Amino acid sequence: MNYLKIFSPATVANVSCGFDSLGFAVDAVGDEMTFTKTAEKGVKITEITGANLPYEIDKNAAGAVVQKMLLEANADFGISMTIHKGFSPGSGLGSSAASAAGAAFGANQFLENRFSELELTKFAMFGEEVACGSQIADNVAAATYGGFILVRSYHPLEIIKLPVPNELRLVAIHPQIEIKTKDAREVLPTKIPLKDAVTQWANVGGLIAGLYSENYELIGHSLVDIIVEPARKNLIPYFDVVKQNAINAGALGAGISGSGPTIFALCKGDETAQKVFDAIKNNYKNTGIEATAFISKVNNEGIKILEKK
Amino acid sequence: MNYLKIFSPATVANVSCGFDSLGFAVDAVGDEMTFTKTAEKGVKITEITGANLPYEIDKNAAGAVVQKMLLEANADFGISMTIHKGFSPGSGLGSSAASAAGAAFGANQFLENRFSELELTKFAMFGEEVACGSQIADNVAAATYGGFILVRSYHPLEIIKLPVPNELRLVAIHPQIEIKTKDAREVLPTKIPLKDAVTQWANVGGLIAGLYSENYELIGHSLVDIIVEPARKNLIPYFDVVKQNAINAGALGAGISGSGPTIFALCKGDETAQKVFDAIKNNYKNTGIEATAFISKVNNEGIKILEKK
Repeated sequence: MNYLKIFSPATVANVSCGFDSLGFAVDAVGDEMTFTKTAEKGVKITEITGANLPYEIDKNAAGAVVQKMLLEANADFGISMTIHKGFSPGSGLGSSAASAAGAAFGANQFLENRFSELELTKFAMFGEEVACGSQIADNVAAATYGGFILVRSYHPLEIIKLPVPNELRLVAIHPQIEIKTKDAREVLPTKIPLKDAVTQWANVGGLIAGLYSENYELIGHSLVDIIVEPARKNLIPYFDVVKQNAINAGALGAGISGSGPTIFALCKGDETAQKVFDAIKNNYKNTGIEATAFISKVNNEGIKILEKK
Repeated sequence: MNYLKIFSPATVANVSCGFDSLGFAVDAVGDEMTFTKTAEKGVKITEITGANLPYEIDKNAAGAVVQKMLLEANADFGISMTIHKGFSPGSGLGSSAASAAGAAFGANQFLENRFSELELTKFAMFGEEVACGSQIADNVAAATYGGFILVRSYHPLEIIKLPVPNELRLVAIHPQIEIKTKDAREVLPTKIPLKDAVTQWANVGGLIAGLYSENYELIGHSLVDIIVEPARKNLIPYFDVVKQNAINAGALGAGISGSGPTIFALCKGDETAQKVFDAIKNNYKNTGIEATAFISKVNNEGIKILEKK
């Protein structure tokens, strides 16, 4: 194989109650990346479209991951890449994670798949660090494994792939405002009441039980975040209105994707998803804030190969 | 039916990471209770063995539950009860819960099973309040539903029955010291670091995923409590020694049952359970503390009918 083209999905992390623990992959939105084997060692990025990202390998999430993997595998060849962003950095949909996880997956294809999904997740976390300054796992694990994932532990890293009920649909709206990661972190409480933590972990338990038992009602009841959402929603104009409109239109629940500003809603079935989409797609009209909305299945396969030769 | 004899199980609540949320029912230990229909209205307790508990209906967890149910159902008959405690109050194994849940189940049999398991849990919670001063759900729900349960929410009450992997076994040891409920509550932190809460809810998620997927290794990794156990273990002499011995002998994990002092360990299979039992059964020898240990399956059926006529 000399050439590979892949789709690497957007991801929703911090799924309501599951702050820093639960994420899932998106089917309809993501990046396209190509990888071409070169006789010359080293990594090159020849084209980036859809976002203004650095071409320097050390500063690019995808480039840094591929470089690290080729070095670690002691590869006698190089890789030349192109990155076509299908969604914006800063959306809260795991933009750097899609690039980093896609890069890890792509490089692995040229290395006879020697690395496991867990190892690819670790490489991609290194890419996240290059892009964002910290090794976050939930977005890159969701992109790598597909479906819903639980980051059970960081030390050692343990990722659990959870089942995805067949009719689960995502509706998301991205109001195009900037939320600084620093601000999103600073509004979080450092300490929380034990009783709120109990409420939250009972909801994490309910959400996971709902995914395993395909109990949409339980998923809906459990999609509640009493800790992070109340702190962060003030960074997202009209969050409460959008969330309420989604729920009124039949969504199981709604919340902040990642650290925002994208707002996501989970729904049962295409028909309800369409209603929820219709109910929220114009919520930012006349507010002076541009917004784009989409409907998607949950992507259960993770990164997909589009072409290889 | 004029006569009913039942077994109502002991229960382990606060299962490691699942403080106030996760419980399960025990197969080998519990109470026996009898119920006899009487023409005269009202409730009587004619015999209590195995523990020193009040015969006054208003002060007895079981008596108060049956009285409330007969009143609510406007029953034209009464019930006379006997209670034979198979384990001690104050053990941390849900003694009042066994009585209260057993009472609710028994009375329901004479009321044509008009009340659902959720309603029975609510009645039994009233019994818990009579005995302990607060309406706790995890023990009574585990006794009522059997198996592993998640208290997903208190308002409204929502109980989720979780699957029990076939080879899951319990080993427990009850050092006969008294822990006052007040002390057990007072040592708890009122606030906890958000990052510890995240670790804890990731473990709750892992434990529930492990139960659904029969992944004993994952169950073991997830049986970790970094919040309540560190605060409460100092109330239980030799806790660390017993826990370490259990884990060294092959237990998946170990923790405090309820608010103690019973220490429980979960194991995969009878052989390992026997090794763990052997490793901990004499841990209180020569300490001046009496202790009793037992092995049990997880009871997946809840309360069982032993005889009816």
